[in-house]
Amino acid sequence: MQNGQRDMRSAEIVTIGTEMLLGDLVDTNTAWISNRLAALGVGIYRHTTVGDNTDRIVGALKDAASRADLVVTTGGLGPTSDDLTNACLGLLTGREMVEYPEARAHVDEKFAKFGREPTPSNYKQALFPEGTKLIPNPLGTAMGALVEWNGTLFATLPGVPSEMKGMFEETIAPLVSSRSDGSIVSKTLHFTGIGESALAEKVQDFLDAADPTVAPLAGQGRVRLRITTRAATEAEAEQKIAPVEKEILARLGEFFFGEDEETLEGSVGRLLRERGATVALAESCTGGLISKRLTDVAGSSEYFGEGFVTYSNESKERLLGVPKETLVEHGAVSEPVARAMAEGARKLAGADYGLSVTGVAGPGGGSPEKPVGLVFVGVADADGTRAEKVDLTAWARSRTSIRERSANRALDLLRLRIEGR
Amino acid sequence: MQNGQRDMRSAEIVTIGTEMLLGDLVDTNTAWISNRLAALGVGIYRHTTVGDNTDRIVGALKDAASRADLVVTTGGLGPTSDDLTNACLGLLTGREMVEYPEARAHVDEKFAKFGREPTPSNYKQALFPEGTKLIPNPLGTAMGALVEWNGTLFATLPGVPSEMKGMFEETIAPLVSSRSDGSIVSKTLHFTGIGESALAEKVQDFLDAADPTVAPLAGQGRVRLRITTRAATEAEAEQKIAPVEKEILARLGEFFFGEDEETLEGSVGRLLRERGATVALAESCTGGLISKRLTDVAGSSEYFGEGFVTYSNESKERLLGVPKETLVEHGAVSEPVARAMAEGARKLAGADYGLSVTGVAGPGGGSPEKPVGLVFVGVADADGTRAEKVDLTAWARSRTSIRERSANRALDLLRLRIEGR
Repeated sequence: MQNGQRDMRSAEIVTIGTEMLLGDLVDTNTAWISNRLAALGVGIYRHTTVGDNTDRIVGALKDAASRADLVVTTGGLGPTSDDLTNACLGLLTGREMVEYPEARAHVDEKFAKFGREPTPSNYKQALFPEGTKLIPNPLGTAMGALVEWNGTLFATLPGVPSEMKGMFEETIAPLVSSRSDGSIVSKTLHFTGIGESALAEKVQDFLDAADPTVAPLAGQGRVRLRITTRAATEAEAEQKIAPVEKEILARLGEFFFGEDEETLEGSVGRLLRERGATVALAESCTGGLISKRLTDVAGSSEYFGEGFVTYSNESKERLLGVPKETLVEHGAVSEPVARAMAEGARKLAGADYGLSVTGVAGPGGGSPEKPVGLVFVGVADADGTRAEKVDLTAWARSRTSIRERSANRALDLLRLRIEGR
Repeated sequence: MQNGQRDMRSAEIVTIGTEMLLGDLVDTNTAWISNRLAALGVGIYRHTTVGDNTDRIVGALKDAASRADLVVTTGGLGPTSDDLTNACLGLLTGREMVEYPEARAHVDEKFAKFGREPTPSNYKQALFPEGTKLIPNPLGTAMGALVEWNGTLFATLPGVPSEMKGMFEETIAPLVSSRSDGSIVSKTLHFTGIGESALAEKVQDFLDAADPTVAPLAGQGRVRLRITTRAATEAEAEQKIAPVEKEILARLGEFFFGEDEETLEGSVGRLLRERGATVALAESCTGGLISKRLTDVAGSSEYFGEGFVTYSNESKERLLGVPKETLVEHGAVSEPVARAMAEGARKLAGADYGLSVTGVAGPGGGSPEKPVGLVFVGVADADGTRAEKVDLTAWARSRTSIRERSANRALDLLRLRIEGR
């Protein structure tokens, strides 16, 4: 549409939908779009969420257009009376709404596939402001709209993630690529077993550097460093990042477990797979969370075959063979029981490693000797068993935090054990 | 600060922080604040997220103030050079930054507790625009700021959820309550086992009604209806909602499982507890997810003692006693195996109910006879065993969706079984 100038540098995202504004649905689209645009050299500088209201949508679109070269919207492309996005774009741009035959045919085709007839309201999805370039949607009924107005390119996309992503990759990405200059590349390094301040101290010089920038991010017991730079091409940007990454890892290697999308469970899975080893789980307070996380990873059946959620003492005893005397003498939340659980799981499942967690997740169940947040993790292998205490009492107010952080500590214990640290 | 007028009706939330803008951290604060403000009679009409940049923060605050009576910000109150919120408020309002002795003493106190000395950068957290009314923070170092400017009240809060919530309840809520008029009350009803369109058809008259409004929300195999109304008091609002709720439940009762914060697992837990019954899990493709969800609920040890993640065929056979011939003849993903798993879990754990799931979560592992998304769930009790096929092939592209929806179907099967339907 434009004349080939590579001048698209800034973008904003507008999320449209009352359920998004009120947080009923989690917004995963924005983060995804931000990442993709950055890789294409376009930075995201503001994200706005508005509800299904004409005035407020028009206002948000107008504001965004006053600042950004590209405005991407998600949501509001459905057939109901709450779906207002394209009509609002028409109001903003002052262009008449027109039925596009291609879009109408697309609606008919999608309905025919299910042996159904569209109702008049479904044809609303074929109405766009005059001068729109349609964005095809192979996976859904709603086509999107590309509209140029006052020096801004609007791209309206559905809220359904799979539809949105397909349309972005197929139509938006090539367009943005042809109009942007350069690439913004980020690499994120994940660390565990070290606190945010301690980590920052070791890399303060990088945190203060101007290019590449290194930003610390923290949450749930894991700390991340994101290295970011802009360059003419992705390859050049990666070349700028590489020496920074190398030096950071030289200083913090033992705490490093993965990069970018990799999770602790993905990392552990990779280590197990590389060695052809298997792990069995014995979970008490985490209640299945670690098994769930391990099996979030496709292909985990290679290294995981069996997990036990031994929530009651009776179950620990009967299933895993934890001796009654040990339970009576030390209590379920103790190092000896964590050891016995790890060994029992390993033996029962015939696995190379046994991993256990026992603790007080709260909010109830605590006592002065065994407060909420006291947790023990254990790992057993052919060479023996190691158990550690994990003090999560600082998170006593959050059952969720205690469970997630216990799972992280257990997985990290396994990681270090496999790596021979 | 104002003269007692009850004129606070609209609010906006501004989330400050680059990691929030790029989606590195999930924003749970906004939804929580929106809900609380609604209960206090103040509607949220826009949510904006900006990064750690002075110009963009000032711009976002200015824009929000041009529209809303109340602007709540989260984030940017820390001691680092990226923390800019209060300084930006100073720039916007043109008021000089002043060190508040009370805030300085608070920083000293918090550090002393850990036996540490604040550095000069920590005292940044004691700097506020002149004329600020401080918001105490018992849980953290950063106090917040209440600033009146051009007819808008600003409230700056930390991004840490526990600190933010405490400060909101203690200081913001009473203030808003005294300045707002009336209450916006919502009640959300959760349904499962019925599709969004079928549900909408049965309550179309309510979906079209003006007051109370009834909005459908869908996701992950569950559909919700949110009933909302505004009235002078919470009690009056609830009285307007009650007859609407009653009629909806009369039409859709068999699909209803809980309201507001209640989850399917919370609902099932309640049903088990009321009957003094217990359940044991045998999970294959869900990998521990159902046990994890059941134990998300505090007190679940009353009705849940043992769960088995039998991820491999060998495990199903050895641990649960699923006959080898059944596995060979029908395959792991079949009705007979789902039955045997449910019965095996029930027996091994000595529980009242056994619940099982076996399926192809994908993306790999599918075949023409057993495609990705084919799942079987089973429930066993003293009266026998029931198993059903669950066709989730439509979500073949999403391992996460298949696992979550399988878990929902299993929990719903148990719910219906307990309720005797």
